[in-house]
Amino acid sequence: MMTMKSHLSLMALAFALGAMPALSQTPAPKLNPPDSQADLKPVVNTGGEVMNFDWPMLKIGMAEYSEGPTGVTVIRFGRKVLGAVDVRGGGPGTVNTEYLDLFYNVPEVDSVVFSGGSWYGLESVTAVNTALKDEGTRSGHWDNIGLAVGSIIYDFGDRRLNEIYPDKKLAQAAFHAAETGVFRNGSAGAGRNTRTGYYFGCNSPSGQGGAFKQVGDIKIAAFTVVNAFGVVADRDGKVQACYGGEGWPKDLMVKDLMQNLPDSQKPGWTVPGGPKRNTTVSLIVVNQKMDPAELKRLAVQVHTSMARGIQPYATMGDGDVMYAISTAEIDAPEGMTNPQLGGIASEVMWDAILNSVPEQPTLPVVTSAPQVTEKAMKTYAGDYRFSNIVSVKVTADGGKLYAQATGERKAYNVPKDAKVELIPYKDGVFMVPGRYPTVLDFTTKGKLVMNPGPWQQTAASK
Amino acid sequence: MMTMKSHLSLMALAFALGAMPALSQTPAPKLNPPDSQADLKPVVNTGGEVMNFDWPMLKIGMAEYSEGPTGVTVIRFGRKVLGAVDVRGGGPGTVNTEYLDLFYNVPEVDSVVFSGGSWYGLESVTAVNTALKDEGTRSGHWDNIGLAVGSIIYDFGDRRLNEIYPDKKLAQAAFHAAETGVFRNGSAGAGRNTRTGYYFGCNSPSGQGGAFKQVGDIKIAAFTVVNAFGVVADRDGKVQACYGGEGWPKDLMVKDLMQNLPDSQKPGWTVPGGPKRNTTVSLIVVNQKMDPAELKRLAVQVHTSMARGIQPYATMGDGDVMYAISTAEIDAPEGMTNPQLGGIASEVMWDAILNSVPEQPTLPVVTSAPQVTEKAMKTYAGDYRFSNIVSVKVTADGGKLYAQATGERKAYNVPKDAKVELIPYKDGVFMVPGRYPTVLDFTTKGKLVMNPGPWQQTAASK
Amino acid sequence: MMTMKSHLSLMALAFALGAMPALSQTPAPKLNPPDSQADLKPVVNTGGEVMNFDWPMLKIGMAEYSEGPTGVTVIRFGRKVLGAVDVRGGGPGTVNTEYLDLFYNVPEVDSVVFSGGSWYGLESVTAVNTALKDEGTRSGHWDNIGLAVGSIIYDFGDRRLNEIYPDKKLAQAAFHAAETGVFRNGSAGAGRNTRTGYYFGCNSPSGQGGAFKQVGDIKIAAFTVVNAFGVVADRDGKVQACYGGEGWPKDLMVKDLMQNLPDSQKPGWTVPGGPKRNTTVSLIVVNQKMDPAELKRLAVQVHTSMARGIQPYATMGDGDVMYAISTAEIDAPEGMTNPQLGGIASEVMWDAILNSVPEQPTLPVVTSAPQVTEKAMKTYAGDYRFSNIVSVKVTADGGKLYAQATGERKAYNVPKDAKVELIPYKDGVFMVPGRYPTVLDFTTKGKLVMNPGPWQQTAASK
Amino acid sequence: MMTMKSHLSLMALAFALGAMPALSQTPAPKLNPPDSQADLKPVVNTGGEVMNFDWPMLKIGMAEYSEGPTGVTVIRFGRKVLGAVDVRGGGPGTVNTEYLDLFYNVPEVDSVVFSGGSWYGLESVTAVNTALKDEGTRSGHWDNIGLAVGSIIYDFGDRRLNEIYPDKKLAQAAFHAAETGVFRNGSAGAGRNTRTGYYFGCNSPSGQGGAFKQVGDIKIAAFTVVNAFGVVADRDGKVQACYGGEGWPKDLMVKDLMQNLPDSQKPGWTVPGGPKRNTTVSLIVVNQKMDPAELKRLAVQVHTSMARGIQPYATMGDGDVMYAISTAEIDAPEGMTNPQLGGIASEVMWDAILNSVPEQPTLPVVTSAPQVTEKAMKTYAGDYRFSNIVSVKVTADGGKLYAQATGERKAYNVPKDAKVELIPYKDGVFMVPGRYPTVLDFTTKGKLVMNPGPWQQTAASK
Repeated sequence: MMTMKSHLSLMALAFALGAMPALSQTPAPKLNPPDSQADLKPVVNTGGEVMNFDWPMLKIGMAEYSEGPTGVTVIRFGRKVLGAVDVRGGGPGTVNTEYLDLFYNVPEVDSVVFSGGSWYGLESVTAVNTALKDEGTRSGHWDNIGLAVGSIIYDFGDRRLNEIYPDKKLAQAAFHAAETGVFRNGSAGAGRNTRTGYYFGCNSPSGQGGAFKQVGDIKIAAFTVVNAFGVVADRDGKVQACYGGEGWPKDLMVKDLMQNLPDSQKPGWTVPGGPKRNTTVSLIVVNQKMDPAELKRLAVQVHTSMARGIQPYATMGDGDVMYAISTAEIDAPEGMTNPQLGGIASEVMWDAILNSVPEQPTLPVVTSAPQVTEKAMKTYAGDYRFSNIVSVKVTADGGKLYAQATGERKAYNVPKDAKVELIPYKDGVFMVPGRYPTVLDFTTKGKLVMNPGPWQQTAASK
Repeated sequence: MMTMKSHLSLMALAFALGAMPALSQTPAPKLNPPDSQADLKPVVNTGGEVMNFDWPMLKIGMAEYSEGPTGVTVIRFGRKVLGAVDVRGGGPGTVNTEYLDLFYNVPEVDSVVFSGGSWYGLESVTAVNTALKDEGTRSGHWDNIGLAVGSIIYDFGDRRLNEIYPDKKLAQAAFHAAETGVFRNGSAGAGRNTRTGYYFGCNSPSGQGGAFKQVGDIKIAAFTVVNAFGVVADRDGKVQACYGGEGWPKDLMVKDLMQNLPDSQKPGWTVPGGPKRNTTVSLIVVNQKMDPAELKRLAVQVHTSMARGIQPYATMGDGDVMYAISTAEIDAPEGMTNPQLGGIASEVMWDAILNSVPEQPTLPVVTSAPQVTEKAMKTYAGDYRFSNIVSVKVTADGGKLYAQATGERKAYNVPKDAKVELIPYKDGVFMVPGRYPTVLDFTTKGKLVMNPGPWQQTAASK
Repeated sequence: MMTMKSHLSLMALAFALGAMPALSQTPAPKLNPPDSQADLKPVVNTGGEVMNFDWPMLKIGMAEYSEGPTGVTVIRFGRKVLGAVDVRGGGPGTVNTEYLDLFYNVPEVDSVVFSGGSWYGLESVTAVNTALKDEGTRSGHWDNIGLAVGSIIYDFGDRRLNEIYPDKKLAQAAFHAAETGVFRNGSAGAGRNTRTGYYFGCNSPSGQGGAFKQVGDIKIAAFTVVNAFGVVADRDGKVQACYGGEGWPKDLMVKDLMQNLPDSQKPGWTVPGGPKRNTTVSLIVVNQKMDPAELKRLAVQVHTSMARGIQPYATMGDGDVMYAISTAEIDAPEGMTNPQLGGIASEVMWDAILNSVPEQPTLPVVTSAPQVTEKAMKTYAGDYRFSNIVSVKVTADGGKLYAQATGERKAYNVPKDAKVELIPYKDGVFMVPGRYPTVLDFTTKGKLVMNPGPWQQTAASK
Repeated sequence: MMTMKSHLSLMALAFALGAMPALSQTPAPKLNPPDSQADLKPVVNTGGEVMNFDWPMLKIGMAEYSEGPTGVTVIRFGRKVLGAVDVRGGGPGTVNTEYLDLFYNVPEVDSVVFSGGSWYGLESVTAVNTALKDEGTRSGHWDNIGLAVGSIIYDFGDRRLNEIYPDKKLAQAAFHAAETGVFRNGSAGAGRNTRTGYYFGCNSPSGQGGAFKQVGDIKIAAFTVVNAFGVVADRDGKVQACYGGEGWPKDLMVKDLMQNLPDSQKPGWTVPGGPKRNTTVSLIVVNQKMDPAELKRLAVQVHTSMARGIQPYATMGDGDVMYAISTAEIDAPEGMTNPQLGGIASEVMWDAILNSVPEQPTLPVVTSAPQVTEKAMKTYAGDYRFSNIVSVKVTADGGKLYAQATGERKAYNVPKDAKVELIPYKDGVFMVPGRYPTVLDFTTKGKLVMNPGPWQQTAASK
């Protein structure tokens, strides 16, 4: 029987050996990524860390295509509810938010949907709405039209080697998997493949976060998918996740990053162009009755408050959107003002932001490099296809292993215009150094797994 | 010279001969309407009257589910173009319009999509966007994300006996069927099952309309799906389509309707509730370069001008949305100011509005009722199912034929709470009188066709 | 049958008899226009044609600086009322409208103010608010802060030879002169010096208009200051005021102007630059209770409907703003829907637009020119100063009289870069021909009056 | 030579003696407060602490009515500049901000004006605009219309005993006093009588703050008038100013206040009603060229970032407005992105927030109460009139001195419904204890000065 102590020792050993285990709570993607959306299979309510909370009016479903990975999170309400929206980012993606800004005092919203996939992921939002009709909850009758609203985050680009997006099939799987009292913090749902801190070059895996608080009879829930250009900070100002650059302090304070701008940004760093590569999308839900103008103020106050936990916030490089929902289950308590409710809700949202941060991957460190035989190298050589846009060609030459990306673009630290030497790291595993080292794992025959772990990318040899 | 009397006789004869034909340019729906969206088959580029115009930069595709009928219209551009939006109605349905209002001077829009199906039809808009990616035109790269925007109209309710909506399959069929130089005026595409004039009880079939004008090098195209609460009027103020009530003048002038409010509205008429049952969605396209603020002003001016051709306009019962697109193919001509361009474009849009009006169905008039045998009546009797929400039970009793709606609601003039006598009208065809007479056609064995023609509803005997 | 010649003779006779009178209802400006705002004296509740209506909750005050002329119109309510706003124009001037768009269900508005003077005239709006405090109606207590909102129109430029603007003094005079039941249609208040039709080169004097209707218990009042780029049309499409160009039809139809764009615009006509030279500002008031979202819809519908009575409307060259007020004196009547109320109110607004059109000046036509002695001419010669920006130098030479503008710009048809011959027209009165002939009246010793009548400009000889 | 220790001892002694000196940098108000605005005399460029900075394009003028005290701050630009606005608060006061949201790429703004006086203070904004015309900088010509925009803060209510507001006279005094390179931090200009922390019952004197930074060729200036509902915090989360309640920690951390909501709010504390009693109004200026959409993003990012330095921020109880100005003096530097510029500017704004906090008044502490003779008390007795809304009646009875407010409301801790005993504190000075002790100073014959210091209120005996 293994004791706790021996277990810990094994873990220590694993780290000493440079392990980078897949976090137990998040499934590794399948090994055969298809190129077509049609062949993808939704995986529902998986990943992240389960957070339980008591609010029967809310049902939440999450689904992912692990091959991306990318995902979607659907929040359903037990009845039509009043909604408000506050759009702040420079590159938002929205469905039917114009309607919310008409301030009708009529509960209309059925569901709030968050999705990966950039603007393509808006299909998730409309798919939930048609699912509401298809299942018979809503109809074509003029006073029973379904209303799903929602927003998306950008989870393409350097972070993965394919362009799978959440689609109708995935969103409807999440919709049908919705259940009460469960949310998954971290790399799950729409937060399956998010990043934070690109603003400072941190490029750190992120996720979705939820938090819940009850004050007297008031219930407050906050949900956020943090794919921010900025970094996440706790209430002491400590950055929660960042691959620090060389010479960076171990305990990174956000005030130091912000105050030292522009020097604190990566040398030569710049945002090459468009305003659509980050975004934090959020939802605050309260159970008290509110009128439309009040609910909008709540949305504004809470959304603004997020500039504390995410710095910087609401930049042109983000597409930040906040939804606010009143389920109107209780009357507004005596003496609870809008600013006070907003203050409390802002702290719940900060908790949700903090809960979004997943366990960060351990960076590979080569201590004593293993010997790799030429014969082994030859078995690793091959042409590995990740998707229609990225392949990696591995060649063995003169006792060394090299890799070069083919296709449309590079694969992490494996460049497209030249081959790079792969450094042996442990048996069957190599790396390419850099501020963010890239790991190449050949231990599964005929496969190349890059950056093994929750966000790993897998290719089959052609 | 034909006298008025002889004219009326000819009309009577026409009916005796089986007049009230399906308009030649619009296909009759199939006889077996499925309940499930899954079994529906898109029919592309059909219906209405073809309008040709010369502008290679625009490709337009239309598709319909004839069983609804309902449809979708997709306008694609040959490259990314600058877009603006102006939302005026009380119940709009929109996708990604918040982004357009950020006024970036960057051409981003790929497509503008109009759809039936109320808010469910927004799936058409997102489906076009994913189709852009699936076909490889757009990708996940940050500077090549697809952007389809669009809006919907409400085409459920009393106008039909099912709740089929345009979905991803239909929208992508329209997208792939897009071709240059062709638009279909009338009952086609997103305008397949629209109505106008409910505000005055007119309840008149409507459609989509397009118009094109070239002034020097400037090209201007206008497209509109007219499902307005108000009526359509020409430049002399003549109402273009309305089932007039008893005692209404033959040549109906919109000024008389408007000035006699509230009396000109149907006795007892009221809008029972929600703000989501009408809507006119429109698009104006120009080929000259404009900056975002200018394009927005163009959208505002043209949209506002539509209050002439549609009266009233932009009511709480509408969800009117206008898109404006600059393809930037030519520099802005010297001396053409924004208000001037807007004035010209407003007239093109008025032409489009007028082009939206389809040939109106001729009302059935019983002159000499045919004799119907009891035996024949028995063959007509049966339980006819239109969809999961409406069936009609036809019974023969004492030499008379009766009908009563079963299911959730009435079927035009066939009530739900009592049976109504069917008046023989011609062989195998009966009617229920009223301001809008309802026709029931039993001439196809085992089928009941209500209101035969472009908008007919067909049921099979259970 | 009257020949053209005899027609002209009659006109000549009319002039000989002293025609082109100042309209009786509008006072002629004083003869000594000061340059400083400080010396100006408000004239209250003058000009235009009195319209009486029965609504004690509304008090209206008007004041003008006749030297401009320019003016201000103040509508006060008997208590705080709910307000909404709809901004459509390309160059609006607004005070505190952002607050109205928060949709609070709290009656807050005390007054709506319309003013000439372009953005300088916004001082009129804030002056009314401080007057509310100074008189003790409102205070600094947090639940009793005054709220005046309002907008302005541009009445500088070619239409006058000075740049006097409505200021705090004038606005407060109007405020204190407010009385119930009286509005002045035409050239009064904020509409004292407005123009319409510059879009088509019409350049026609305009004004402010009001209209009132009671339907059952519902009271509806509409007020508008029409300084539109477009022309005013009645319900038959007839243009209400326009100096037609040569060859223009006598009965000008707006559809002909609009459909013949761009040819119907003055040759060489263009809007040189900015978006701030026209504007129609309007107010619709109802006495029924409405919630903020409903009131906004009313504002939108009525504002949009104005595109019928003013064509084109809401151009970049306008700054159109609509306010809507609910005095909440009665509950919303059973069965009156928002679109229906909006339809009725839209017609009241059209009436108000039509009421804004003042009697148009008769154009001078020279038939048999009077003989002017050289001696008389010498008495007319002189250097006449209209304001710090325009003077006119009149010289007699070789039995002819000439004029040339000095200062910053021309004076109507009297150019700045050369002298122009003055054509004798009647005793002591001359003209400069053109599409809009300019009249110069020397009949008051030491003065030059240009375009005598309600909008006349007067200079003293230096 | 005075050692640090002896210095501290002297300070301790001073406090023991009841010192509460008027801060040297801020003038005490005059002793004869008039009730009428007409008699008030502007005092220009006074108060606060001078901050110098190098940017010739900016001229800043400040003026105050010390009797309020209340004031105004005018920022002028050396030419027309591009402006953007971001309104976030629940009770904003704005002039001409609708225009800024049209996104014209035309420099139009002449001046940004901040003012006390709640919505009445908007007169300051329009007065600056008319001053621009009156001085001849701007005119009535269509391409040279002045444009002053601006916003106000609420500085009435409990904080003072009169309702004087900044008016045209005061604003034009500030306008004409504008000079380059000087801003006054603390209790000056529009920040003359601001408070922060009412949200937590802190009720702490506040002010206006400015900061300036140059990065390469980029100049960034931030100005803010902090009258926030929330508290000001530094980058370590330390609250900068708050009268702590009993048992509150000496070093107050904002995270503790926020996380302990609702308990951290004053017992029984609530916001009784309206949304108009706080507000932070701000301006960020950059010298690089930006297009309208970029400038708006800058406004949004910087405004949002203020939620760090002021917590909570953008509540319904605030009327927060941010203006952003680009003077376009230099081209946008290579590689400086909008989010990066926004990050730097956000830190400059945080500095401005911190600079707004004035030296806080020392609370009076009674150590050894002085003996007061009955005779002296009788000389203090009297009826003191602060303004038309507040008087205080002081009576001597049985060797004790009492005070009671007469007029409309209480005077700080002196109640209206009963008399309160005055505690002798030092010679001629008394106090009323409480969380915020009130000081009554009778040392000037025939006067009563309450809370002597920069915000003191003075009454003459009737």
